[in-house]
Amino acid sequence: MVKGKITGLSVKDVRFPTSLGQHGSDAMHTDPDYSAAYVVIETDAEDAIKGYGLTFTLGKGTEIVVCAVKALSHLVVGRNLEDIVANFRDFYRQLTSDGQLRWIGPEKGVVHLATAAVLNAVWDLWAKQEQKPLWKLLVYMTPEQLVSCIDFRYITDVLTEAQALEILQNGKQRQEAREEHMVKHGYPAYTTSCAWLGYSDNQLQKLCADALKEGWTRFKVKVGADLQDDIRRCKLIRDMIGHDNELMLDANQRWDVNEAISWVKELAVFKPLWIEEPTSPDDILGHGTISKALAPLGIGVATGEQCHNRVMFKQFLQARALQYLQIDSCRLGSVNENLSVLLMAKKFNIPVCPHAGGVGLCELVQHLIIFDYISVSGSLEKRIQDILLK
Amino acid sequence: MVKGKITGLSVKDVRFPTSLGQHGSDAMHTDPDYSAAYVVIETDAEDAIKGYGLTFTLGKGTEIVVCAVKALSHLVVGRNLEDIVANFRDFYRQLTSDGQLRWIGPEKGVVHLATAAVLNAVWDLWAKQEQKPLWKLLVYMTPEQLVSCIDFRYITDVLTEAQALEILQNGKQRQEAREEHMVKHGYPAYTTSCAWLGYSDNQLQKLCADALKEGWTRFKVKVGADLQDDIRRCKLIRDMIGHDNELMLDANQRWDVNEAISWVKELAVFKPLWIEEPTSPDDILGHGTISKALAPLGIGVATGEQCHNRVMFKQFLQARALQYLQIDSCRLGSVNENLSVLLMAKKFNIPVCPHAGGVGLCELVQHLIIFDYISVSGSLEKRIQDILLK
Repeated sequence: MVKGKITGLSVKDVRFPTSLGQHGSDAMHTDPDYSAAYVVIETDAEDAIKGYGLTFTLGKGTEIVVCAVKALSHLVVGRNLEDIVANFRDFYRQLTSDGQLRWIGPEKGVVHLATAAVLNAVWDLWAKQEQKPLWKLLVYMTPEQLVSCIDFRYITDVLTEAQALEILQNGKQRQEAREEHMVKHGYPAYTTSCAWLGYSDNQLQKLCADALKEGWTRFKVKVGADLQDDIRRCKLIRDMIGHDNELMLDANQRWDVNEAISWVKELAVFKPLWIEEPTSPDDILGHGTISKALAPLGIGVATGEQCHNRVMFKQFLQARALQYLQIDSCRLGSVNENLSVLLMAKKFNIPVCPHAGGVGLCELVQHLIIFDYISVSGSLEKRIQDILLK
Repeated sequence: MVKGKITGLSVKDVRFPTSLGQHGSDAMHTDPDYSAAYVVIETDAEDAIKGYGLTFTLGKGTEIVVCAVKALSHLVVGRNLEDIVANFRDFYRQLTSDGQLRWIGPEKGVVHLATAAVLNAVWDLWAKQEQKPLWKLLVYMTPEQLVSCIDFRYITDVLTEAQALEILQNGKQRQEAREEHMVKHGYPAYTTSCAWLGYSDNQLQKLCADALKEGWTRFKVKVGADLQDDIRRCKLIRDMIGHDNELMLDANQRWDVNEAISWVKELAVFKPLWIEEPTSPDDILGHGTISKALAPLGIGVATGEQCHNRVMFKQFLQARALQYLQIDSCRLGSVNENLSVLLMAKKFNIPVCPHAGGVGLCELVQHLIIFDYISVSGSLEKRIQDILLK
C-alpha cells in the first residue's frame, strides 16, 4: 500500500576523484570524476520511509543537473504518492512535457537526466513502501499497471499500448520458474574494470589475472585512441583469456562512420563479440552502416548508454542499427521510459545488455534487467550485464 | 584585426511575460514566457568593445542554462580572441567535448544551448572588432577560414573538409551581385505572428488583415491541438489571403507518426506549402515516413528548430526526411555548427528556411541566411525566413 504526501525533495552534488587513478577513463572521457546528482524524497507518512534516486555524471556539470532537479521539484512536492502511481504516465508526462521546460530538452540532456534522478527516487520510495526490491515490484505488477506507467507518445508506430499489453501478458507464463532461476543464479555479467584506457599493460594484466581467478568469463576493453595500442592491448587480453571466454570492445564514440569500420576490421582478428559506441550516439543511420559492414565478420554493434530517449531507441531498432541494446537506468527517464524500451527490444528480438559501471548504475539497472528476463524477454541468450569491480 | 584577451563573461536570466497575451502559444508550448540566457563578453582591448550572445528559452529553466554558461566560463575567460578565431574549430571542440561536461550532453539540450550563447557572443565580438555585420564578416572570409571554424567530427561520411571547401569556392562566383541584391531587396520572409494557437478568430482576422495591408504574402498557422479548430482557422486564413499567397502549417511536435499523416491529409484542401514539426524532433525515420506520405499531396515537411546538432541534420538529409531545413541560431552550436549544416543542405539541394520568432532569433539568424544566399546556396528558390512582428 503506497501512502503519504511528498513533503520534501532535496538534491546533493556528490563527486568522487576517480580521475586520480584513471579509473573509468576511455577514448572520449579521459579524466572522469565519477559523480552523481543524488535525490532524496520525503513524505508525511508515519513509516518515515524515504526514496533515494540518482543520475550518474562525470564531475563537472553535476551542479547543472542539480539545478535542473530543483526546477522540477515544484512538480513533485505536495503530490500524493498514491495519485502519482495510480496515473504514473501522466506524472511522467508532467515532468517531461512542461510547456516551458521542454524547450531546453525535450527529453534529452540535462533536464532528462534530472527527470531520471527524480523518478528513480519515486520508484525507490514506492518499492520500499511495498517492502519489495524494485524488480519484484515490477514482476508482480499486472500488465495493465505496467502499461499505465509508459508514455507511448512518439512510439505508437512501432509499439501500441495493445501490443505492449500482449507482450506483458505472454511474459506472465512460467514467470515463477524464471524468478527462481534469478534468485538462485543471478544475471550473467561481464566486467570492464580490467581495461580502462588509462591503465598500463601491467595493471591490465594483473587485473585480468585476478578477474579470471575470480571466475569472470567476459571482458570489455576500451579502444579508439590509438590503433597500435588497441592491437597490443587486445592481443594481450585475448592471449590471457583464451578463446573460450568473450571479449568486447568499446570505443566510446571516438570515430566517424568510415573510420569505425576500417579500425574495427583491424581488430577483427581478436574475435570481439561487439564494438560498443563506435560513433556519435545520435547517429542512427551511421550505426546502421557500421552494423551492415561488420556483420560478415561476426561482430555486432552495441550502443545505448548515451541514447537519450525512447524515440532514439525506436529508430535504432527500426534501422537495425544495433545488435545489443544497452539501456541506462539514469539516461532514460527512469523505470517508466525503460519499460517502453524493453518492450520494443522484445518486439524486434534484440537482446538488452544494460550499461552500468558508474556511480549507482549497477545497483539500479540490475532491477530492470532481472525484470526483463522474468517478465519480458524470457531469455538469457546473448544477454549480459556490465559490472564494476572494486 | 581581432585583439584582446577575454577578461570577463557574465550571463543574465532575462524573461518576458508573453504568456499573459498568449503570444507564442502553440500545441505543445501553451504558455511560453519568451526568455533568454544573455551572455556578455569583455576584453582588455582598448576599444572596450563587448560581445553579446544569447540562447532563446521559454521561461522556466532559463536559470539552468545560466548555470551551464557559468560552467563553460573557465574555458573562455583568459583566452586571446586572436587565438580563438585562428583555430576556431579547436575552440568549438573544447566547449563541446570537455571530457567531463560532454556526459550531460553531448552537443544537445542545456549544455549545447549554453555553448550557443557563449559562441554567439564570441562571433559578435569578432564582427564588431572587424566593424562588419556578422553576415559580411562571413561573406568576406576565405573558404579556408570558414572551413577552419567547422568541427567535421561525425559528418565526414556526408561532408568532408575538401567537399566543404569546394562548395565555398564555388560560392565565391558572382558573390558581389548577390550581396547587392540582399542589400537592396533583403531576404524573403513570412510571418507566424497572426496565428498563434491561443489567439481568437477575431484576433487572427484582424492581425491577418493588417499583415496583408502591410504587404505580407506568406502566413504560418499553428495547428495540432484540435482538428475542427484547425479546419476552421485554416479556412478562415486561406479565405482571407487567397490562393496567390502562401500558407504554412506548424504542429510543434504534437502528433505521433500515423496521426500526423491522417491529420494533415484533412488539412490538405487548404493547400499548405509545408507541415512543420509534425512529430518528435528526434524522429528522423518518422519524418521520413511522413514526407513520403505527404509528397503526393504537394505538402513538404519542415523541421529543425529543435534539431539539436549537425549529426541529426545529417541524418534528416540522408533519410530525405525534410524538404525545408530550419536552422536555429541558438539551438545549434552557433555560427560554427550552422556553417556545417548550411553546407550539407547545399550538398543535398535542400532549401534552408531558418527558424526565428523568439527573443533575438530573427536578429541572429538573418546573418546566417543572408550568408547562405550570398556564399553557399546562391538561390532564393523555396527559401523564406520566419519574422516576428511586434
